[in-house]
Amino acid sequence: MKPKISEEYVQIDAVGWKPFPEAFSDGGIRWKLLHVSPERGSWTAIFDCPKGSSFAPHVHAGPGEYLMTKGKMDVRGGTAAGGDTAIAPGYGFECSGARHDQTSFPVDSEFYMTFLGPLTFIKPDGAPIAVIGWAEAQGAWG
Amino acid sequence: MKPKISEEYVQIDAVGWKPFPEAFSDGGIRWKLLHVSPERGSWTAIFDCPKGSSFAPHVHAGPGEYLMTKGKMDVRGGTAAGGDTAIAPGYGFECSGARHDQTSFPVDSEFYMTFLGPLTFIKPDGAPIAVIGWAEAQGAWG
Amino acid sequence: MKPKISEEYVQIDAVGWKPFPEAFSDGGIRWKLLHVSPERGSWTAIFDCPKGSSFAPHVHAGPGEYLMTKGKMDVRGGTAAGGDTAIAPGYGFECSGARHDQTSFPVDSEFYMTFLGPLTFIKPDGAPIAVIGWAEAQGAWG
Amino acid sequence: MKPKISEEYVQIDAVGWKPFPEAFSDGGIRWKLLHVSPERGSWTAIFDCPKGSSFAPHVHAGPGEYLMTKGKMDVRGGTAAGGDTAIAPGYGFECSGARHDQTSFPVDSEFYMTFLGPLTFIKPDGAPIAVIGWAEAQGAWG
Repeated sequence: MKPKISEEYVQIDAVGWKPFPEAFSDGGIRWKLLHVSPERGSWTAIFDCPKGSSFAPHVHAGPGEYLMTKGKMDVRGGTAAGGDTAIAPGYGFECSGARHDQTSFPVDSEFYMTFLGPLTFIKPDGAPIAVIGWAEAQGAWG
Repeated sequence: MKPKISEEYVQIDAVGWKPFPEAFSDGGIRWKLLHVSPERGSWTAIFDCPKGSSFAPHVHAGPGEYLMTKGKMDVRGGTAAGGDTAIAPGYGFECSGARHDQTSFPVDSEFYMTFLGPLTFIKPDGAPIAVIGWAEAQGAWG
Repeated sequence: MKPKISEEYVQIDAVGWKPFPEAFSDGGIRWKLLHVSPERGSWTAIFDCPKGSSFAPHVHAGPGEYLMTKGKMDVRGGTAAGGDTAIAPGYGFECSGARHDQTSFPVDSEFYMTFLGPLTFIKPDGAPIAVIGWAEAQGAWG
Repeated sequence: MKPKISEEYVQIDAVGWKPFPEAFSDGGIRWKLLHVSPERGSWTAIFDCPKGSSFAPHVHAGPGEYLMTKGKMDVRGGTAAGGDTAIAPGYGFECSGARHDQTSFPVDSEFYMTFLGPLTFIKPDGAPIAVIGWAEAQGAWG
């Protein structure tokens, strides 16, 4: 008989920020990995994004949902480019297959996000560089 | 050929709070429904919980994850009763099958939560009163 | 660090059929529970359904997918009533919120099904009688 | 208000087999794509695998479940190499992160499989060649 999964609680301000891997971001993004679900393949994190920082181009394998808790995020280039500009407090749903060539932070920002499945970081032509899911996130967080 | 699902963005402070159904809460809880995913059966909301408010007893069908953005929440009775006491900024994972006989707010509080599957509100003996998932949430939100 | 979930294999013909609970079926339905996923809240089973058997009315909380491996199943009353009549080999997708007032087998039949989330068995007015998910399925299987 | 997702039914023997892309398989594997779920990122197919055929090395992003309906499949090298050898009728659960360097069919075989998230086809060193999920499967099926 398989047991229920244990509940978890993280006191977020008691955990220190760590640098997010530079291979996948620019400008000093830091993060806290809050949860991984190995069975479902989901993971949850909060990101601290200084003014001028950005994430490298990637595709979401499954749906992702974020809560903007501070500042401003230009997703898919921001509203000016046909994407979204999230301003705290803001909520966003990113679909399975969402391609994020440009995700950037014009001011100091913070957001919380739940991911189902991995992110595929890509070259400009869409070819995969690395597939980062719960296991790789857990490994990078250490 | 099925298309990708559309991205969504909600400017949370541009949406008004609505009372959460009194059949399932006590003490003036208000909410904003942010998203429903009819295919996966998931939904996302933010809750405003005055001091002294509480949710009626329920069971989570699937996993739920919350971000405590303000105040304090006693889950499963709080730490004093073997549950968790979440203090902003705090993160919690509630499993498939988690039974929440007591969820209460000792101070004015706010939390954001993603739900996979419905909540079953229950009688003290565990018998189901109502099963509230994405469709019922959407209906209650109106 | 959380490990990967273990792979599983079941040699189906080496497992005996057990009666499916009579509270939720009629006419001698038997089943083999093949898998439960406690984290995701999913479960998988194969059902042996004699001619004239049926399932009690229920609602699917999350999506369900079936492969008809033998015989014939009238779902949602069958095609004559606006539902589907599955004939082996047939595949069906049932959505989150699908209500199955009538699921019956006009000939000896067998089908395999994956479920995300619980089934809510209901009274004619839709009120819940019992919510049967991975944990209850595992308990009934023993 | 978002509607429920439509139910679907496919009469499997009324659909013709198509060759599975040779970039990802060897020996004449054919398939029928039965369903895609764009929101959840899941997809379902049945595969016809002649004696001596095999799939190219890949990693499962999310969980996958199969029903062996005919023949025999050596997964992760087969039981002789520490993997599983599935013999019809057999059921298998493959986890998020399962790496399948060798999946081969010693006799004419057929299996049905549900996938959550994409498969990443990989080079011997694990580097990604292509990420194939519901959208790419739908595109390949045409």
